[in-house]
Amino acid sequence: MSLSLYDVSIPIYDRMLRNLATFLDKAEAHAKEGGVDLKTYAEASLGHGMFAFARQVQLASDAAKGGAARLAGVEAPAMPDTETTFPELRERIAKTLAFLASVRREQVDGQEGREIVLTFPGRSMTFTGESFLTTFSLPNFLFHVTTAYAILRSQGVPLGKMDYLAGAQTAALAAAQTA
Amino acid sequence: MSLSLYDVSIPIYDRMLRNLATFLDKAEAHAKEGGVDLKTYAEASLGHGMFAFARQVQLASDAAKGGAARLAGVEAPAMPDTETTFPELRERIAKTLAFLASVRREQVDGQEGREIVLTFPGRSMTFTGESFLTTFSLPNFLFHVTTAYAILRSQGVPLGKMDYLAGAQTAALAAAQTA
Repeated sequence: MSLSLYDVSIPIYDRMLRNLATFLDKAEAHAKEGGVDLKTYAEASLGHGMFAFARQVQLASDAAKGGAARLAGVEAPAMPDTETTFPELRERIAKTLAFLASVRREQVDGQEGREIVLTFPGRSMTFTGESFLTTFSLPNFLFHVTTAYAILRSQGVPLGKMDYLAGAQTAALAAAQTA
Repeated sequence: MSLSLYDVSIPIYDRMLRNLATFLDKAEAHAKEGGVDLKTYAEASLGHGMFAFARQVQLASDAAKGGAARLAGVEAPAMPDTETTFPELRERIAKTLAFLASVRREQVDGQEGREIVLTFPGRSMTFTGESFLTTFSLPNFLFHVTTAYAILRSQGVPLGKMDYLAGAQTAALAAAQTA
């Protein structure tokens, strides 16, 4: 037995983006209850130059669609980072999920050895498909989902670890049933 | 081609714990420069009932050693969460890294279909080795590493995303060379 590149990438992006969407639901409910303007949450950050909540959602989306696209060897849809409101952030997550759903298993599986080059101002990083996923894309993606969670928690939104890990049990059962 | 369970688990815990250790180094240097008592950082949190920095380090250690142990089918060494100082937290990370180094590739590879049951007060979750890693252990582990980073950033420690992602390039090159 061994693992498929698709199974250790696309479903993780997908499930954690869905969980991120539920953070928005709970933030919205909490804002309504407390008479808080949702703009406060969208613009909240952990301070010291860290990105605000809305930007963390955009970066989680970027990491998911960029990761999936690079693994599949396709172009990621451009999303110009104009979202500032909760409905716009929801729409951003929905568009990202739709792109993930369009990536086919056979485009990703077997690509673990393909060269993936990331270019940044002044430097580039050369990966294999596998090392791109495990050393860069997944840690980076989960960084932004976690930071989005932390920002809302720091604003008093009642989230718990099981909101962040939601779907784990479902995924476990689904995996066991198809094993 | 396909991926091995060892390659998508143990090296991630290992590299990210080493990066966590460098967060401690940078926090220590920053505290020295600013005349800050390191206790301030160890006890800092993002508020609203979230765990403090020292506890985040312990939980990252727990997730790594518990994850590796469950995947390998061995017992994780007990670590009683008594650390409060930076030297003690460093020692905790070092002990966790030593345990990870003791886990052999052949104990983990091939275990992706084995049943793993997590028991919590009032509920249990049944996974396969693969779903345990991808839906629970990795997201949970990276949650605590990221939150530890976020707490230090929120205290003004000069960390950047490349401190969190350190080793990605090295790992990429190593993977390419052994491919």
